[in-house]
Amino acid sequence: MPKKDEKSLGITVKKHENFLEWYPEVVVKAELADYSPIKGCMVIRPNAYAIWQKVQEYFNPVLKKHDVKNCYFPLFIPESFFHKEAQHAEGFSPEVAWIGNKEDDEERLAVRPTSETIIADSFSKWLRSWRDLPLKVNQWANVVRWETNQTRLFLRTREFLWQEGHCIYATEEDCVKDVHAFMDEYVALVKELLAIPVVTGMKTKKETFAGAKFSLAMEGLMPDGRALQMGTSHNLGQGFMKAFDVTFVGMDEQKHAPWYNSWGVSTRLVGAVIMTHADDKGMVMPPRVAPIQAVIVPILFEDSKEKVLQACKQMQSELESHHISVHLDDRTEYSPGWKFNEWELKGIPLRIELGPKDLAKGECVIVRRDTGKKNPVKLTNVHDSAKTQLDEMHHDLYMKAKHFLEGNTVEAKSMDELQHHIRERKMVLIPFCGEPQCEEDIKKKTDAGSRCIPFGKKPKDTCIGCGKTATSMTYFAKAY
Amino acid sequence: MPKKDEKSLGITVKKHENFLEWYPEVVVKAELADYSPIKGCMVIRPNAYAIWQKVQEYFNPVLKKHDVKNCYFPLFIPESFFHKEAQHAEGFSPEVAWIGNKEDDEERLAVRPTSETIIADSFSKWLRSWRDLPLKVNQWANVVRWETNQTRLFLRTREFLWQEGHCIYATEEDCVKDVHAFMDEYVALVKELLAIPVVTGMKTKKETFAGAKFSLAMEGLMPDGRALQMGTSHNLGQGFMKAFDVTFVGMDEQKHAPWYNSWGVSTRLVGAVIMTHADDKGMVMPPRVAPIQAVIVPILFEDSKEKVLQACKQMQSELESHHISVHLDDRTEYSPGWKFNEWELKGIPLRIELGPKDLAKGECVIVRRDTGKKNPVKLTNVHDSAKTQLDEMHHDLYMKAKHFLEGNTVEAKSMDELQHHIRERKMVLIPFCGEPQCEEDIKKKTDAGSRCIPFGKKPKDTCIGCGKTATSMTYFAKAY
Repeated sequence: MPKKDEKSLGITVKKHENFLEWYPEVVVKAELADYSPIKGCMVIRPNAYAIWQKVQEYFNPVLKKHDVKNCYFPLFIPESFFHKEAQHAEGFSPEVAWIGNKEDDEERLAVRPTSETIIADSFSKWLRSWRDLPLKVNQWANVVRWETNQTRLFLRTREFLWQEGHCIYATEEDCVKDVHAFMDEYVALVKELLAIPVVTGMKTKKETFAGAKFSLAMEGLMPDGRALQMGTSHNLGQGFMKAFDVTFVGMDEQKHAPWYNSWGVSTRLVGAVIMTHADDKGMVMPPRVAPIQAVIVPILFEDSKEKVLQACKQMQSELESHHISVHLDDRTEYSPGWKFNEWELKGIPLRIELGPKDLAKGECVIVRRDTGKKNPVKLTNVHDSAKTQLDEMHHDLYMKAKHFLEGNTVEAKSMDELQHHIRERKMVLIPFCGEPQCEEDIKKKTDAGSRCIPFGKKPKDTCIGCGKTATSMTYFAKAY
Repeated sequence: MPKKDEKSLGITVKKHENFLEWYPEVVVKAELADYSPIKGCMVIRPNAYAIWQKVQEYFNPVLKKHDVKNCYFPLFIPESFFHKEAQHAEGFSPEVAWIGNKEDDEERLAVRPTSETIIADSFSKWLRSWRDLPLKVNQWANVVRWETNQTRLFLRTREFLWQEGHCIYATEEDCVKDVHAFMDEYVALVKELLAIPVVTGMKTKKETFAGAKFSLAMEGLMPDGRALQMGTSHNLGQGFMKAFDVTFVGMDEQKHAPWYNSWGVSTRLVGAVIMTHADDKGMVMPPRVAPIQAVIVPILFEDSKEKVLQACKQMQSELESHHISVHLDDRTEYSPGWKFNEWELKGIPLRIELGPKDLAKGECVIVRRDTGKKNPVKLTNVHDSAKTQLDEMHHDLYMKAKHFLEGNTVEAKSMDELQHHIRERKMVLIPFCGEPQCEEDIKKKTDAGSRCIPFGKKPKDTCIGCGKTATSMTYFAKAY
């Protein structure tokens, strides 16, 4: 038995004692990601990439439903493009990495931090008439933002993977409708696939995407009381369109600029999954994105080995025929206990134990990763039970996270209350004036920033930052 | 009617008269790709990206079958990594783009031209014991090679998309077995999905991947008589492993270096599809990768409009329920003739025409894009007929390309014959000594390079380049 491995296998830090050390330990030990030799970059390992691939498999049909077409734009963007939309240039300049050695080019080339400019340039070539609208594209791509803040695996890395959707419309009404529709799709994605609840709303002026009229965001609340922005959808208005001379001939035979939105989610979602669901034993994979949903661990003794293994193989094919992804861990060089630890660390939702005594009773034991609850199940009923337990686990993970989010969201009526609640690691709803300067002042006093302005909540009282008229109720929290 | 569009819609150059002008015209007008503002880069438009996405959907299950796991490695590679494997550094240095503005880093960062070095670095952290082998990963990624030769859309661009598989094994035997197995999978992919035949074999010493013991390649023959390398699979031996200190403890409790292979196909495959199958009317999509397999064009008259459209919608759902992807072109602002041209240009495999006269007979007309043959089909039989015609079209496209490949592959017994055949745009099999210097001499005399050394063909006579002993029969051709 490889004793040394066994000792180093487990998580040594408790989630609720030292969250900031617990998180990277889970990421690395559960083989979700690894540090890269390049500062701030990461290697996404198969266990985590599988989650991202499931996000792609879920979201590609959603894109199709909205008639958004996948395509691919160049990684490199000419420097001059950034300067065409002034706010955009200002927002992204500090984070851009440039290609250095290509002297034959007339201008510097940026490694894309986002693709509005180069896509607007293509739109200007493709768009002719109202008949071409709406024009909706998406790309799954890597982007680079040279963070100077502390980087964190999945949450803030200098390179990350994302999808970025870019759509143009004949009217602002259609454009804005889809800004909301894609945000709704994101909320459904994180709920249905990742078992994560969020709050949604509009970003404040200070936090609006560089170049947008308004931005929507969905925000999760991590177990350490920090908010995590998990997806955004922007109404870009006509600014980029006018800067890149994108026009169409309308039914009135006049030239018009279209209305533009963009929206994205990234591999940061994987970080949210880990933070939300993993525990002191390691990763907990939400069932619908788990690379393996069930692992069968046979309990082998010399005299019953053949029979037990055969029953395990039969169970494997049965589960697979019911579309449950399953792995039979028939390695003989590891003990069952060692295997239990390994699969718990990796977060496989269900462990199915089958030994000679179980077999004699025509049973196996299914153990749920999140609760540790052991359920004896008749062999004839394994696939039904596994399916039910996977669904229940998804539901329970979501409800647990939802209770946490709701239980840790409060309102504050004064700066004192806000400071208190932020210290208590809450997400706090406050009456707020919406002014960037006031937001900075609140940040200085509380270390919390605005997260989003939820829809349909009328402001009560005056802004607790400056005492002026409140224009909205706004969520504030510390953030990643 | 938009007359101006109509005029500029068609392809103005004949494939067999001016192939090199015909190709980019098809690419741009069929909306497969567009030139980028960055020299040598391209925008992959939805019509072509759909082909690449189909390649991914086909190949991901193949990877799973071979137990290869998807993951993602950083775009940036430290300069020092390139120098660890001397041949590799020499081979790739001229093509590398470097990040220029990040002074806080101790060394320059390369934008990956290929990922052997950074993956070997990760293997060195992950590999411990023989129990971890084989270790097989793959990534779908963008890579950058700063071509100084003329670039061509899809065939040679400074950035392209590919998959790169990287596997390590305990024995050279297992490693080499998979070098061949993955090449076999590529040959099946291009045959079954893209309807393209290839020849396969080993690369000559001169053309072997920088750092490999040997390289396999599959080579297609394009209609202008140039070969196109469409996929490679390399036995990298232990060179990278030793350079990056990748070791495992074997069953003998000793340290060993594993054996390493890598293999890839790229968006160049899309270029091969266009060159091979497109014609003077534009793109021809092989049915299994077509973004839309059938387009329904209703023939509308005022008095029968409703009935015809309803029949078309019914046909659409019926075809979709039989897993045929179908688009109903019910636009009223374009004439049927205009639509026919547009869908022919875009290469949709089947066009289904339905007008009031057809409807009265309970029929429609299915027109195959490649042959233009019109088939009247009973409405009750549409899905069966469409399915059959799609299968036949795939088969016919493949056979046509196969006849072309076979009919244009010849043997030469002397330099004169070789020169003659190359002028005649053939792929030519010759007895060859295998020496890089002789290969350069042949290139000077014929403008043709070696493509690959097919398996199982014994060399006849002496090398026609230098007169020394021939070590193999080798394919030579002009190439992209």
